[in-house]
Amino acid sequence: MKIYMDEMTSKEFGEWVADDKVIIFPIGAVEEHGSHLPLATDSIQPIELAEQVAKRTGAVIIPPLKYGNCASTANFPGTISIRPETLKAIVVDILRELARHGVKNVLIISGHAGRTHIAAIKNAAGDVVATANIKVMALSDYDIVYKFRGMDEFPKDDGHAGMIETSRIMAIRPDLVKEERKGDIPNFPPFMVLRDASRYFPTGAMGYPERAIEDIGKRLNNFLVEEFVKLVEILKGVEE
Amino acid sequence: MKIYMDEMTSKEFGEWVADDKVIIFPIGAVEEHGSHLPLATDSIQPIELAEQVAKRTGAVIIPPLKYGNCASTANFPGTISIRPETLKAIVVDILRELARHGVKNVLIISGHAGRTHIAAIKNAAGDVVATANIKVMALSDYDIVYKFRGMDEFPKDDGHAGMIETSRIMAIRPDLVKEERKGDIPNFPPFMVLRDASRYFPTGAMGYPERAIEDIGKRLNNFLVEEFVKLVEILKGVEE
Amino acid sequence: MKIYMDEMTSKEFGEWVADDKVIIFPIGAVEEHGSHLPLATDSIQPIELAEQVAKRTGAVIIPPLKYGNCASTANFPGTISIRPETLKAIVVDILRELARHGVKNVLIISGHAGRTHIAAIKNAAGDVVATANIKVMALSDYDIVYKFRGMDEFPKDDGHAGMIETSRIMAIRPDLVKEERKGDIPNFPPFMVLRDASRYFPTGAMGYPERAIEDIGKRLNNFLVEEFVKLVEILKGVEE
Amino acid sequence: MKIYMDEMTSKEFGEWVADDKVIIFPIGAVEEHGSHLPLATDSIQPIELAEQVAKRTGAVIIPPLKYGNCASTANFPGTISIRPETLKAIVVDILRELARHGVKNVLIISGHAGRTHIAAIKNAAGDVVATANIKVMALSDYDIVYKFRGMDEFPKDDGHAGMIETSRIMAIRPDLVKEERKGDIPNFPPFMVLRDASRYFPTGAMGYPERAIEDIGKRLNNFLVEEFVKLVEILKGVEE
Amino acid sequence: MKIYMDEMTSKEFGEWVADDKVIIFPIGAVEEHGSHLPLATDSIQPIELAEQVAKRTGAVIIPPLKYGNCASTANFPGTISIRPETLKAIVVDILRELARHGVKNVLIISGHAGRTHIAAIKNAAGDVVATANIKVMALSDYDIVYKFRGMDEFPKDDGHAGMIETSRIMAIRPDLVKEERKGDIPNFPPFMVLRDASRYFPTGAMGYPERAIEDIGKRLNNFLVEEFVKLVEILKGVEE
Amino acid sequence: MKIYMDEMTSKEFGEWVADDKVIIFPIGAVEEHGSHLPLATDSIQPIELAEQVAKRTGAVIIPPLKYGNCASTANFPGTISIRPETLKAIVVDILRELARHGVKNVLIISGHAGRTHIAAIKNAAGDVVATANIKVMALSDYDIVYKFRGMDEFPKDDGHAGMIETSRIMAIRPDLVKEERKGDIPNFPPFMVLRDASRYFPTGAMGYPERAIEDIGKRLNNFLVEEFVKLVEILKGVEE
Repeated sequence: MKIYMDEMTSKEFGEWVADDKVIIFPIGAVEEHGSHLPLATDSIQPIELAEQVAKRTGAVIIPPLKYGNCASTANFPGTISIRPETLKAIVVDILRELARHGVKNVLIISGHAGRTHIAAIKNAAGDVVATANIKVMALSDYDIVYKFRGMDEFPKDDGHAGMIETSRIMAIRPDLVKEERKGDIPNFPPFMVLRDASRYFPTGAMGYPERAIEDIGKRLNNFLVEEFVKLVEILKGVEE
Repeated sequence: MKIYMDEMTSKEFGEWVADDKVIIFPIGAVEEHGSHLPLATDSIQPIELAEQVAKRTGAVIIPPLKYGNCASTANFPGTISIRPETLKAIVVDILRELARHGVKNVLIISGHAGRTHIAAIKNAAGDVVATANIKVMALSDYDIVYKFRGMDEFPKDDGHAGMIETSRIMAIRPDLVKEERKGDIPNFPPFMVLRDASRYFPTGAMGYPERAIEDIGKRLNNFLVEEFVKLVEILKGVEE
Repeated sequence: MKIYMDEMTSKEFGEWVADDKVIIFPIGAVEEHGSHLPLATDSIQPIELAEQVAKRTGAVIIPPLKYGNCASTANFPGTISIRPETLKAIVVDILRELARHGVKNVLIISGHAGRTHIAAIKNAAGDVVATANIKVMALSDYDIVYKFRGMDEFPKDDGHAGMIETSRIMAIRPDLVKEERKGDIPNFPPFMVLRDASRYFPTGAMGYPERAIEDIGKRLNNFLVEEFVKLVEILKGVEE
Repeated sequence: MKIYMDEMTSKEFGEWVADDKVIIFPIGAVEEHGSHLPLATDSIQPIELAEQVAKRTGAVIIPPLKYGNCASTANFPGTISIRPETLKAIVVDILRELARHGVKNVLIISGHAGRTHIAAIKNAAGDVVATANIKVMALSDYDIVYKFRGMDEFPKDDGHAGMIETSRIMAIRPDLVKEERKGDIPNFPPFMVLRDASRYFPTGAMGYPERAIEDIGKRLNNFLVEEFVKLVEILKGVEE
Repeated sequence: MKIYMDEMTSKEFGEWVADDKVIIFPIGAVEEHGSHLPLATDSIQPIELAEQVAKRTGAVIIPPLKYGNCASTANFPGTISIRPETLKAIVVDILRELARHGVKNVLIISGHAGRTHIAAIKNAAGDVVATANIKVMALSDYDIVYKFRGMDEFPKDDGHAGMIETSRIMAIRPDLVKEERKGDIPNFPPFMVLRDASRYFPTGAMGYPERAIEDIGKRLNNFLVEEFVKLVEILKGVEE
Repeated sequence: MKIYMDEMTSKEFGEWVADDKVIIFPIGAVEEHGSHLPLATDSIQPIELAEQVAKRTGAVIIPPLKYGNCASTANFPGTISIRPETLKAIVVDILRELARHGVKNVLIISGHAGRTHIAAIKNAAGDVVATANIKVMALSDYDIVYKFRGMDEFPKDDGHAGMIETSRIMAIRPDLVKEERKGDIPNFPPFMVLRDASRYFPTGAMGYPERAIEDIGKRLNNFLVEEFVKLVEILKGVEE
């Protein structure tokens, strides 16, 4: 059984699609993640997650969109940020096409959790569900995994490229994680719309990447798979 | 001293404006708030707050925008929701004009705290600060006051038109609050982009409006004034 | 009986709305009006008018939009001009929402009478009535009151912030009108699309503000109320 | 000497263009004009006028745009109305290109005088002059010729496809004018944004086409040439 | 019988239009064509062709749009290039209006054959046919006539303002063709999106304009008429 | 040495980027390709090619965009077509970001060769190079490989999902190619903008997929690598 939709032929897809089928749409980013994590960090995580969930649930993955809107890290080398309007447009187009082909359930997993980024995605989905016969669940894996912050070994102020994120990447692509790791506890002026947020976290990481442990990453990743398997069931069951 | 910018003449404004001056821009909404609170609920609160803060700090208020983006309550009678693109456009235009006139500090207070609504405002501000010489602080009063949820008398799951919001309106416009008050503890399917969220809270209120007390509202409102007076100082002091 | 729609609860609005009800939508501006009138001049007049007409006819007022498109005064301090595209977008959104809620009759009163501004409003309304079941009447109070120019005591070339406008504001908000008043009789090059119209009327006023009299303002304002009461009847009666 | 810019070669144009040169841009429409005048009525007039003015002043004409925004006649057969946004876009593009090539003076003559149509043109010009080194004068020939209404033989309520317009076309293209001519004196409900204005003038003409006389048309056309020759001089002389 | 649609009255058009009628829409450009051909070259050809085809087939021509998108010649004096978005918008508007009036068959002939230009036209047509009951055939006359390149007397690398195009203009408007004619065989770097393509063909012509012969032009033009007469039949016969 | 840009850290990218470096941007599609090739066909080819070229030249690949504009196959199951406006927007955003980071040379390889699709990409690139200091080469691998049609064993009318394309996929992902293969030689009505092109090639393939041979595919793929290695050198050498 294929987990990637575009490895099917047209005919295979036409035969596969049915009311109880689920499409997973992973959205990543090309974004600075400290000096120890790759720019692909926010793509690697939701794609790995999507693959595990697909295998467990029979859901099928459409090609990941590996570009997102990344405001606060834009000034670091390598961040490729697309406008929220662009992100909304492409998500709208893709969801409309899925609906046109009879897809009823779509799970969007965004590795990047920036506010404007997520709002663009949800706003796109909102526009589509308002007029098309399709259900969309949209979240970041960090909506779930950041709930651990302040519990057990997870520091309260861990964040972007911090202990949690670094651990998770160590568990998936250890070859891409650098040994030397540093983070800031940024002191952003509250509620300011910053022209250059990078001034407040010169390392490009927030929290405690040096405390990252591959095993914790594995545990978190596994936990996420379990949670998303449940979410897939909820998505299929919701009546709209 | 006038607290509303548009009560000044052109000349008065020209003489008033200076690098250390602060403009407050309240953004409200026309939105269903249960069967006990007026549609203006999200306008009444930030305007009252803006007036108190203006009096305390010498800041000046530009005309409130009393329209916002209200997705989840759109299906109740009376909600007037503008598209996020429209909201972004008008905030961009107004901020650009303020920057053109030499305003350096803008505090946007949004009474409505919906995700897409706030993202549109912050996104607009982000576009303007990227190219114009102006600083923008943008938040909802509920970013601050909801921190009390789960503390003291405030229930953890209080929300839209609930105990806190009802108390605050009772303290400002008691004449507009109905006696009979009911709320739901909505059980939204997680992370779903809902076509019609209203199905999950038929009363149009979330939480415990029946526990609302005018005195609590006064206390919350006063607390907010103190907090926003501090925020105005922070805004003026931030170097960009 | 409430005259402001957003002082109603959702339920009250749902019970009020009916085919023969009329919504009034006042549109103002933040615009330089000489050195003697407040920036709110174009908001003050239509709002006062709307309130009187609402009281007389049972119509209900939605929150005024106090921002407009102001090309010719943009270079004076304090004018906040939104793009015509933005103005069109917000008027479209609001009218669509009213139509969605079953409103059948909308009267838009714009205090500002600039050509591009009015065209944006009428164009928005045209787009909405083409597809939604709603009737829209849209005008500036100055479409009516400027008919007096050249008659009786009203000079033919009176205009922006001139005798008529100053008299009307004196009758509503005398506290906001300065004693010292001067106007120009601008000599615009004909039909030029000017980069900076303000060069041609350095006082920021056109006409004879020094001849303004509160009593004339009262008379004009009362006349307008009578005329708009008739317009509300026409609006309700038009079959579309 | 060529009067049409696009009959020049690139080199000829490059040699011709200079600070004191004037480009005329005629804008027409494809619009119903009663049952006696051709759909090209609003193109024929400004093009004829542009040619005469070009011959008299040395100005050069760029290709006429024979499409405009025609709201009130849209429901009659043959009216091709482009959106005001489209009209604005093409006028912006053309003016920007002219400015790029060093053109300093542009006279736009619109045969159609609809409010939204003219606003789109002026709004486009306003956006361009705000940032480019170019001067634009924009008007309809009817801004001038309708001043005769109510004087001498010209009825006060003559209008679209009426006595004046019919006379003018008779003087230019008599072969395109039908013998049988009828007009209405439409009784539009005041200030209504009409879904279908054609209901109020079933003949598609307003005024007195039956009184049209070729000789009057010639006189009006000649008068317009003289007036526009003066306008060209004003345009060249205005300092911006 | 009139060949230009806008020489009809509204009534005549209403009587003419029927399912088997064909509208021809010529699209030209204002574009540099060497130092020997006029800027109108791409308008002259499709308009002449449209007129001949209309006479032969009973098709009717709507006003030509004499503006197009011209990227590669933008840096030569006189080229007026409109954005592809603008071109798409106006073609969409015009086609929608034609469909609204009951036109079923539209033939778009574009004199300009630039890739982005043609894509904008076809893309516009695609959007309209997707939702309206209308058929559109769209091509450049050069899609047909360039097939001769490399055959008989036609050099393989003839192109813009070259032997073929010059011959054709000589056959239509010999008065506008200069004696002195030069062309380049440009050596564009392959597949580059050039900022300034004009660097590679300083004469502004590609190919062999000096070999142009009026008689060849006549032959080509006649051939095109025959081909387009056949295309009109195909257009009418296609079932969609 | 990494060939994928987003496997670098921010710091690595910052150190890598220099005037002589080349970024490759592969653009694919989710598009029906007969009943024998996967929907990913147009992604698989340019990505494989990009990887080989990157290894040979030291160029670095940014995340492929696996969505394109696919008009003619939209009606087959599985095609996900994004609007050309959306495609343009995302290409513009990505190129602007690359330019912002100091990238000077970008090679876009599009697996899909649809006219509107390619025009959107080139148009996007044109807008960016007009204002940013970056060079862009953009082509489809089929711009090169289709030159073989009509030569040797390659049929003249081979096309979409035909012998050439099938051979190439057999050489890269033989596991995704079905045994049973059929193609049509579609007889499109010439120059029609078709509402549903799929009517003319019911197999969803054009040409001779049954003649496909893995070895030919290898040969074509290798040839393409050589050609693109040369193109990279040209791109680096072009002076703009």
